[in-house]
Amino acid sequence: MKFAKIPPATIGRLSVYTRHLQELTRQGVEIISSEKLASLCSVNPAQIRKDLAYFGEFGVRGVGYYVKDLLFEIRKILGLNKEWNLGIVGMGNLGTALIGHENFLKQGYRFVAAFDNDPTKFARALPNGLKVFDIKEVKRIKDEVGMEIGVITTPASRAQEVANRLVEAGIRGILNFAPVRIHVPANCEVEYVDFTIRLDSLTYRLSVED
Amino acid sequence: MKFAKIPPATIGRLSVYTRHLQELTRQGVEIISSEKLASLCSVNPAQIRKDLAYFGEFGVRGVGYYVKDLLFEIRKILGLNKEWNLGIVGMGNLGTALIGHENFLKQGYRFVAAFDNDPTKFARALPNGLKVFDIKEVKRIKDEVGMEIGVITTPASRAQEVANRLVEAGIRGILNFAPVRIHVPANCEVEYVDFTIRLDSLTYRLSVED
Repeated sequence: MKFAKIPPATIGRLSVYTRHLQELTRQGVEIISSEKLASLCSVNPAQIRKDLAYFGEFGVRGVGYYVKDLLFEIRKILGLNKEWNLGIVGMGNLGTALIGHENFLKQGYRFVAAFDNDPTKFARALPNGLKVFDIKEVKRIKDEVGMEIGVITTPASRAQEVANRLVEAGIRGILNFAPVRIHVPANCEVEYVDFTIRLDSLTYRLSVED
Repeated sequence: MKFAKIPPATIGRLSVYTRHLQELTRQGVEIISSEKLASLCSVNPAQIRKDLAYFGEFGVRGVGYYVKDLLFEIRKILGLNKEWNLGIVGMGNLGTALIGHENFLKQGYRFVAAFDNDPTKFARALPNGLKVFDIKEVKRIKDEVGMEIGVITTPASRAQEVANRLVEAGIRGILNFAPVRIHVPANCEVEYVDFTIRLDSLTYRLSVED
């Protein structure tokens, strides 16, 4: 797929739209007005129309959006019309929590490999039948299991070294949970997860109400 | 503090701005142009100016923003000119990972209490000296330690029950990591953390490049 240059914020909002469309699907809602969808997603209706307009014509004038169709189309735009294979590095509490977290599979993300640098963790069986491999073996395992995206859950101090190994193994997408910026070549994409960022929205609302 | 009605997306972006301003502070950068800051934050400069304009005049024409001052002012807007006390419910792998995660304290969030419903976990000492209490005791402990925000890290199936207990205990802000919507009275605020949402931006970029 090729589109005009799309603002990253638009892509971020498309993800949010899919989460609410999934919830609507679960509730059996078939059609939703752009006003109602916008309100669920905490944006204004013009924003949704503008975000979708980059990719084509969606929705029916005077009717709204067909929930399932819109969800299908947005997931296709986001590259989620296929399942993605994740390899995770850092099998402490966070790594172990993520690998067992129901949301990944629900969204089309499958953990296919797990790594650490601590020999006492190797060959440990994980809840979903995976084993923990030595990070030094990442290249071989990546090719064997078709790992596409690397997830880093090491302490901050190890994240860059792990990123280097992932890049060397040919990984082109990294999701970094370690609270540190990492540097990768231009042919590799990185996204960061910051657990605390939604807390700021809470503290803002709690402060304003006082 | 009272402000005009601010779009939630603006508040979300203010958080993102603070993360980059913190990084700039660490790097010793004192002044930054709005173009440079916008580029770091993946928004356009007009967006930053518009977001800040809700709250007053920031930045100096022809100069840019003083990094430390802007960081201080935005953190004040977000209610982060004080430390916030968090209580966490659900001490499995995810809860244990979060309570030891360096990023919370860095952002001004302090875990002051931990709860579970599994008696084998009670009185277990956590890395930072906290103990795990029975969720039934949440009201008493909340008052004792001054817990302000509840963090839910239980499985999805327990999240609503835990939210009810937190609300009954007088908690007015909840950060929910369980992958399920929860229902609370209007005087309680909820935010959700979805680990997978940043993955969608990765898969988009990897798909477009193909």
